[in-house]
This record gives sequence, structure tokens and C-alpha cells, in this order.
Amino acid sequence: MKWCSFEMQEEQRVGIVEGDFVFDVSNQVHTTNLLEVIAREFEPDIDLDVAPSYRVAEVKLLAPYRPLKNVICIGKNYEEHVKEMDTAGAGKLVIFTKAPTSVVGPDAVIERHPELTEKLDYEGELAVIIGKSGRDIEAVEEHIFGYTILNDVTARDVQKEHVQFFRGKSFDTFCPMGPFVVTPDELQFPLQIKTSVNGETRQDGTTADMIRPIDELIRTLSKGMTLEAGDIIATGTPAGVGHGMTPPTYLQTGDTVEVTIEGLGTLRNVIV
Amino acid sequence: MKWCSFEMQEEQRVGIVEGDFVFDVSNQVHTTNLLEVIAREFEPDIDLDVAPSYRVAEVKLLAPYRPLKNVICIGKNYEEHVKEMDTAGAGKLVIFTKAPTSVVGPDAVIERHPELTEKLDYEGELAVIIGKSGRDIEAVEEHIFGYTILNDVTARDVQKEHVQFFRGKSFDTFCPMGPFVVTPDELQFPLQIKTSVNGETRQDGTTADMIRPIDELIRTLSKGMTLEAGDIIATGTPAGVGHGMTPPTYLQTGDTVEVTIEGLGTLRNVIV
Repeated sequence: MKWCSFEMQEEQRVGIVEGDFVFDVSNQVHTTNLLEVIAREFEPDIDLDVAPSYRVAEVKLLAPYRPLKNVICIGKNYEEHVKEMDTAGAGKLVIFTKAPTSVVGPDAVIERHPELTEKLDYEGELAVIIGKSGRDIEAVEEHIFGYTILNDVTARDVQKEHVQFFRGKSFDTFCPMGPFVVTPDELQFPLQIKTSVNGETRQDGTTADMIRPIDELIRTLSKGMTLEAGDIIATGTPAGVGHGMTPPTYLQTGDTVEVTIEGLGTLRNVIV
Repeated sequence: MKWCSFEMQEEQRVGIVEGDFVFDVSNQVHTTNLLEVIAREFEPDIDLDVAPSYRVAEVKLLAPYRPLKNVICIGKNYEEHVKEMDTAGAGKLVIFTKAPTSVVGPDAVIERHPELTEKLDYEGELAVIIGKSGRDIEAVEEHIFGYTILNDVTARDVQKEHVQFFRGKSFDTFCPMGPFVVTPDELQFPLQIKTSVNGETRQDGTTADMIRPIDELIRTLSKGMTLEAGDIIATGTPAGVGHGMTPPTYLQTGDTVEVTIEGLGTLRNVIV
């Protein structure tokens, strides 16, 4: 299934996408917040035949939801990306977080924050959505609700200045997400991840190149720390960020960043 | 005012403490979650004369609340603590987070997690509770709801292994908080912070020794990142952690850790 959140007459709705259409299932799932559907930990009965539907192109898609904790992010999870970066942590499992206030949806603007950073950068990533809470998780697949696209927008200078990545990753609008949350049965791994800036391909990777694959990430993360339904884990970015270019090339006002992942669509945002 | 959360007949309640008594004001504030009171951003009308009251010693105090995002933590904010530590970041404003799943209350057990760490350590800290949302905050005092005690429990080996501190700080039960949230009018800064293990004083500092005082922390943190009512900021720990002792002395099963801050009471937890 392909879930989404969208806006209809200035209200948030929960939708299921099939082909070119989005079906408003808010009444059937008794909530307008997709997070609540996920947090219930069971699959709802849905009848699309009785759901109001719209053309996807005609609605405003929103971020799937704002999580109840920071987005958990994996750094240094693609070999070629480790090589292009100058921050510490090669060979280590690097885990940091992004504030939930930074979450925005598809087509939302990414603020340039010119007074705070001269080195605004993108990181196209596959994000996993936890669907069943647990600690010391072994049967990983049972705990995955689905996947979405996430752009781990980063102020490189701020990231470096504070040693710990949190602040440079957490400015408002630094976490575009969406447009869809797609359940595992609809995806064929490995998935291709592409990021472009103004139409020019910058990142072109595949999830097959993760140093630590998703099942290992969830097993490790859940050791001693309860993961909860609705938690979002960004699994790291492939090579090709602006910081790694020669010369380094950062995002500027007016730039359009698009992250495309096979089966998950395209997450498009403009820097303003 | 001195707020708390407590349990009465297996239900969570919102309380106000005066002297030896806690007054159950849940009905007057129309919620049993202290976070909701704070998030409303206005002072409720309360009449203690009509509130049910109990002896504080007779109720079970809980963590004030679970925040809607990770606890924001400041590292390296006391000169002498910077000297005793071997992690990077001296001179930098180090900011990291703890998962909200790690929050527990006063008298709750701290899990030893023996399969994950050999270096369990405490960090007694003053935590600030944001009371009014804002970004690029200047008038800091208007944005502070109150203060509480927080023990930033840390697995030193895990903290180091992952370079970024998040995981080593976020195991379940690693964030004892409470027992009270005290409004600024009841406190006389600077405050003394003491931490003891099994009655032996380990940390004995004062908030006067913060490298970056609270107003600077909030001004900096809120630059480009919206802080929200209910956000919790742990302001760093003074010297005297177990990791800095000669030889390093870590927490073991059965140890009792007590963090006492002037005017805020004592946060006591046992390692199990």
C-alpha cells in the first residue's frame, strides 16, 4: 500500500494512493494523522470503493507525519560517501538525530538560513518507518511499516562547528519527507537512489551499497533502546553530496533538489 | 510554583507541591499530563483550597512528562568537566540528544544494561523547561517555564564507539527526571548541583560555573530552530563523573545515585 498525508480544504487527511488517484480514507481509519494509523500496530480494514478520491496532481501532499521523537539518522553508511567526507567516524556506526520541528513535506520550501550557514547541503536517503514497537528486535521484517524518501539537509559548517551533528542537521525545514509511505510488499530491493540539483544528477546510488543493511541497523538500534511504531530511521546517503564536489558546491536560493527512489516517487523541494 | 506528576490509584495526575503536601490539580487544569499544561502557554487559574491533597511522601512521583521530541543536551559546559573527559569538543558548544523513551521518574530503576556497556556513568544536570515556543529567541526569560533535575546517564564505551553521543545516551531508563518542575520565581541562581553515589559526594558544582549560561544556550539553540513549549534542555554536568576518577569508577548493580539541586529537591535512582 502507498500511504500519504494530504491537504483538502485546508484540512489534513490520510490517503492511499493507487495509480494517479489518492483515496481519502480518514473516515475509515478514524484519524487525520497517519502516525496514529501506524501506532495502532494493526492493518486497518479499508474499502477504497467508498472513499472520496482525487487526482494526486490536484491535492497538496504533506509530510507523512511529524514523529513523536527526533528522526534517527545513520551517518557514513555508504563507502564512497565516507571517502568524500572529512568528518570523523569512518568505519563506525554513526547515529545522530534531527529535530521533528525540521520536518516538512514534498514541495515545501527549504529555508536557506543565510545568517547561519554558508554551506547548505543535501543528502538523499531512504527512510524506514517502524510499524511495531520493540526492543532487542530480531525478526526485523515484522517491525517495518514501510519506507519513504528523506532529504537530510545539512549545514556543513554548523555540523562541524559543534562536533555533534544535531544542530547543523536540525534547522527548521531541514527534513523534507515524503511524498508517500510505501509498504514493503510493493518494493523490490535493492532500490536506486538519485538526487539531482536543478536537474543535474548529483547522487546515483543503490541501497545494495549500504555498509550496514537495514536489518542490521534495526537490530543494533533496538539493542537496549525501545523503537516505537512511527519511529523514522534515515539510513544514510550515497556519495555525491555538494560538500564532496571539487570545488565544494553548496545549495543556493532558488535551487531545486529532487530525491528519487525506485517505487517511492520523487521528493522535490526548492531553497528559498 | 512547584509542579509534579504523580500516581494515584494507578492513574497519572498533575500536582502542585506546597510544603509536605501535593495538591491534585488535574481536574482544574483539565488534563493528567503536565506537558499539556505547559504547551498551552498560559498560567492556569488554580485554587488549591478545593484540590484533593496528599502527603508527598505517600504518593508515587513520576517523571514530569515525556517530551514530544528528544531531550536536548549540552556537553562540555563546565570547565573542570571538560578537563576530566577524553572526548572531542573542548571549547565547542556540543549539542546532542537523548531519546524520549529513556525518560523515567524519580525512584525508578536505571537498567544496568550489562550486555551493552561496561562503563555506566552518571551526569547530574540542571534541565530547563521551555514554556513558550519561539525561534531566534532574545527575551529568554519569557520562554522559560521552569527547571528540573536530570541525570544524563551515559554508557561511556558506547558513547565513544559511535562518535556521535546519541546511542550511548539513549538506552531505556537513561534519562531520570524530576521530582519537580519549579518555576523561576522560586529559585535563586546560581544553584548548587551535587551528585552522590551510595552517599559519597562525586559532583559538587554550581551553575555559576557554566561556560555558556542558560540565556546564551537558549539564544543559540533557537537560532534557526524553533524551540517549543515543553522542550527540555539539559545544561551540562559539572566535574566529578565516574569516568574522570582515578581509576575510572563506573556504576554497578545496586548503586544508588542521587542528584540534588538547590530548590529542586533530590532525584534518586537505583541501578538494577
